[in-house]
Amino acid sequence: MKQFFSVADVIDLSGIVDEALRLKREPFAYSNLGKRKTLGLVFLNPSLRTRLSTHKAAANLGMDVMVMNMDKDGWALETRDGVAMDGTTVEHIREAAAVMGQYCDILGIRSFPKLVDQEEDYSEDLFGKFIRFCGVPVISLESATRHPLQSLTDLITIREHWKDDRKPKVVMAWAPHVKALPQAVPNSFAEWMCRAQAENILDFTIAHPAGYELSSVFTQGATVKYALDDALEGADFIYVKNWSSFKDYGKIHSVREQWMLDQGKLELTNQAKVMHCLPVRRDVELASEVLDGPQSLVIEEAGNRVWAAQVVLKRMLDELTTLNQL
Amino acid sequence: MKQFFSVADVIDLSGIVDEALRLKREPFAYSNLGKRKTLGLVFLNPSLRTRLSTHKAAANLGMDVMVMNMDKDGWALETRDGVAMDGTTVEHIREAAAVMGQYCDILGIRSFPKLVDQEEDYSEDLFGKFIRFCGVPVISLESATRHPLQSLTDLITIREHWKDDRKPKVVMAWAPHVKALPQAVPNSFAEWMCRAQAENILDFTIAHPAGYELSSVFTQGATVKYALDDALEGADFIYVKNWSSFKDYGKIHSVREQWMLDQGKLELTNQAKVMHCLPVRRDVELASEVLDGPQSLVIEEAGNRVWAAQVVLKRMLDELTTLNQL
Amino acid sequence: MKQFFSVADVIDLSGIVDEALRLKREPFAYSNLGKRKTLGLVFLNPSLRTRLSTHKAAANLGMDVMVMNMDKDGWALETRDGVAMDGTTVEHIREAAAVMGQYCDILGIRSFPKLVDQEEDYSEDLFGKFIRFCGVPVISLESATRHPLQSLTDLITIREHWKDDRKPKVVMAWAPHVKALPQAVPNSFAEWMCRAQAENILDFTIAHPAGYELSSVFTQGATVKYALDDALEGADFIYVKNWSSFKDYGKIHSVREQWMLDQGKLELTNQAKVMHCLPVRRDVELASEVLDGPQSLVIEEAGNRVWAAQVVLKRMLDELTTLNQL
Repeated sequence: MKQFFSVADVIDLSGIVDEALRLKREPFAYSNLGKRKTLGLVFLNPSLRTRLSTHKAAANLGMDVMVMNMDKDGWALETRDGVAMDGTTVEHIREAAAVMGQYCDILGIRSFPKLVDQEEDYSEDLFGKFIRFCGVPVISLESATRHPLQSLTDLITIREHWKDDRKPKVVMAWAPHVKALPQAVPNSFAEWMCRAQAENILDFTIAHPAGYELSSVFTQGATVKYALDDALEGADFIYVKNWSSFKDYGKIHSVREQWMLDQGKLELTNQAKVMHCLPVRRDVELASEVLDGPQSLVIEEAGNRVWAAQVVLKRMLDELTTLNQL
Repeated sequence: MKQFFSVADVIDLSGIVDEALRLKREPFAYSNLGKRKTLGLVFLNPSLRTRLSTHKAAANLGMDVMVMNMDKDGWALETRDGVAMDGTTVEHIREAAAVMGQYCDILGIRSFPKLVDQEEDYSEDLFGKFIRFCGVPVISLESATRHPLQSLTDLITIREHWKDDRKPKVVMAWAPHVKALPQAVPNSFAEWMCRAQAENILDFTIAHPAGYELSSVFTQGATVKYALDDALEGADFIYVKNWSSFKDYGKIHSVREQWMLDQGKLELTNQAKVMHCLPVRRDVELASEVLDGPQSLVIEEAGNRVWAAQVVLKRMLDELTTLNQL
Repeated sequence: MKQFFSVADVIDLSGIVDEALRLKREPFAYSNLGKRKTLGLVFLNPSLRTRLSTHKAAANLGMDVMVMNMDKDGWALETRDGVAMDGTTVEHIREAAAVMGQYCDILGIRSFPKLVDQEEDYSEDLFGKFIRFCGVPVISLESATRHPLQSLTDLITIREHWKDDRKPKVVMAWAPHVKALPQAVPNSFAEWMCRAQAENILDFTIAHPAGYELSSVFTQGATVKYALDDALEGADFIYVKNWSSFKDYGKIHSVREQWMLDQGKLELTNQAKVMHCLPVRRDVELASEVLDGPQSLVIEEAGNRVWAAQVVLKRMLDELTTLNQL
C-alpha cells in the first residue's frame, strides 16, 4: 500500500478488516516490523483521537513517531504554483512535503476543508500535492473530503458486532449541530459502505433532511431517505453524524423535524447499535440516554481506531520491507 | 495503586519514600516493567517540570509516552450532566476520558482551579469524573486542590537531607507574589507533612499572615504561626511558597510585614535547608542570595520529581501486571 | 564535545564532515550509544527542520527525546541578574536551565534575536547563561547570531557534491525577502566557510548590496563583492540567503539591482549547484525554475541536517560515556 486516501486504495475490503481484527487480538505480533522506521504525523488542524490512536498503532509496530502541529500562525503553506511568495505563506508545499519525506519513512497528514469554495476543497489540491512531492507513502489523517481511517474503523466495528447470517442494515443518519461541519466523515463512511454493499456485506441507507444531499461521487448504490423514522425501521446499525450542506456549500439549513436520535427513535429500529465518530455534542446530536445506554458502541468504536491505523501502517511497512529486499 | 490523587492513596508513607530512593540509585532496575505500556499525559494547563520528569520516569520504566496539550481554545470539555451541549464546549468528559482510556494503560491529568468559585474548585469535579470515566489508573499531575507528585518529591528530598536521630522541624512559609496562585501546592504539602508528623517522622509548622489560613482539611495537627521570625526559630527545612486566600477565595491581601525569605531571616533557623517547588520569582518570593546560597535545595528537589513519578508509575505497573496474571 | 555553538567548537573540520558522511552510509552503526540517555530540545522559537532532523538523529543513536515548546505566552524567561521579578517573566534562566539539566543528558536550545538591539543580540547572553547554568552539554539549535547545525550540514553537502581536485568556489549570495530576517544563518555559514578556506578546502566569496555587510567577526578572509553577476562568475556552489542589515540593525534597505537568482544568472556560473537552508520564498528569494531545476540541492541539503545533528550528538555521547567510565 503506497497511499491510504480513499476506499479505492484497498484491494480486499474483507481482507483488511479481518487483518485488523487479528491485530486487535495480537497487537504485538509484528512489534519489530517498524523498528528503525519513522512515522511523521502532520496536523494542519487539531486532532485528539487520530493522533493518539495512530501513535499507539505505530508504537505497537515498533516505529518511532514525530508529530508536527502546523496549525498555528506563521506556518501557512503555499500550494499554488507560479506565484511570487511575497505574502503571508512562508513555505511552498513542494519544499515542505519533500523535506518531511527526507526525515520520515511514512507520513500522515490532516487538512480540513475551508468550507468556502466547494471546487477548491473537493479538488483535494493540498493532499494531492503532498503525496506527489513528499516521496514516501502517505496516510490521510482526514482530508477535505474524506476520513478513511475513521471509515475503516467503522467497518471493523460493524464486523465485530454482527454475528447473524443475513446482511445487516446500516443507516447513516444526519443529526443537528451548532456549527457548520465538513462532509469528510459522511462522504467517507458512505463511500466505504457503498463498496461493502456492492460486495454483498451489508445494506446501506442514508437519511437526511432535504438540502443535505452529499456529492453523488460517494453515494453510489445507497438508498436515500428524507424521513428519519422511515430510515430507522429495521436498522441494525445507526451511524449518527452531522454535516453542512454540499450543494449550498458549507451552509446550515434550518430543519423543522426532530433529527436528534433519542430513545424513542431508537425503539423504531431492530435494537440497532449506535455509532458516532466523536466528539459528539450531547443532547444536540445524540441524546444522553442513548449515548449512555447499552446499544451505544461509541467508545469501543474509538478504541478500534488503533487497529485501523495499525493494519494500514503494517501494509505500508510490508511493502517498504519488500522493496528494500529487492 | 489505582489512583494517585492525595496522600490517602499511599498506604506506607515511609515505604514509598524508601522505594523512590532505591529507584534514584538504580533508575533502570525495572526498565522492562513498562514495555508495551502507554502513559498518556493530559495537560489542561501548561507544564514544564511535571511533563519532563514524568516522561523521564516513564522512559526509565520502558513505557511509551503520549502528551496531549488541551490548554488551547477549541478543546473546552463539558463536565456537567443534563445540559444540551449547544455552546462552546466541544466534548463531554464522559467521552473524552473514556476514549483516552482506550489508548493508554495509565493516564495523568493536570487541571488548575479557576480561583473564582471555592466550592466548584474544591469539589474536584473534573478530576473525579476523569477517574470515573477513563477506566484506567490515574495520576494527578496537579489538580485544583492538590499536587501530590510535588509533595512526595518534597518528602523524598527531606528524607535524603536529614541524617540526625531527632525529628526535623519543617516549616512551610508563605511568601509574597505578584499573582494570585492556587492553594494546591501548599494544601498538598501540608497534607503530606501532617501525615508524616502523625507517623512521628517530623514536626510541621505553617507560617502565614492573617487571612491566608488554608482549609483545615489539609492542616490537621500542624502548628500555625502568624509571625515568620517566630516560625523560623529552630527550623531544619523551610518550604517557601505563595498562595492566595482560601477564605476570601482567590484574593491577594496586602501584607505589611516582610515575608520574603532573605539571608537575615535564614540565620534565625537551625541552618535550615531551603526548598521551593519552582518556578520562583527571584527577590519577590525568595532572595537571590538564598537561592544561590549553599542551603538551597531547589534544583535537587526539582530533580527528585523523577523518582516520585517513577515510584508511582512502578506501583501502578506492578498492579496492572498482577491483574494480567490472574 | 561539551558544546556546539560555533565552528570554534570543532577541532577537526574535515574529520567531522567525514564522520557525518560515514553515519549517512550507516545510520544505525551506533544505535546503542544513546540508550537510556535523554535529549531535551528547547524551542523559544518555532522549528520544523531542526526539530525533526535532530529528533531523527537522536533516535538513530537510541536516545529518548523530549521537546519543550516555550514560544508561547506565559513562559517568558528572565535573564538579568539583580532585578526583582515582579513583572512578566515567570522563571529565571538560572533555575530553568538547571532544572532541564536535571532531566536531560544533552540539551539543545533555539533562541532567535529580537533584531532591535544589536549589542544585546550579539552578546548571546541567553545562550551563554543557558550553557553556564544547565550543567550538561548543549547544542545550538540556532541562536541570535549563529546556526551551526545548518552550517555543518552545508559543508557536508558541499563535500558530497565536489569530486574535483581543485578547490571549489563557494559564493554566498544575498537575496531579497519581504521580512527582516536575522543574520544567524549567513554569519554562521561565513564563519564555517572562512575556516574551510583557511584550511585550504575551498574559496569563499560573499555577495551582497551595499549596506548589507555582515559583522567582520564572521567574514575573516572572505572575498566580498557588491555585484551579483561579478560574484557568480566561476562559482561552483551558490548559497542563496536573505538577511537584514547588521549596521543599520535589523533594517531592510531598498535594493535596485536584481538580486534574485534565476536561470539567466545561474548560467553565469560554472554550472553551480544551488543551496538554501529553507524555508524559501519562491520567486522572491529564488526563481522556481532554479529550485525545480537539476542544479538545486536544497532537498538533499535539508536531508543532510540529520547527519550533522547525529555526528554532534555522537561526539557528545562518546564523551559522556568516557567520563562515566573514568
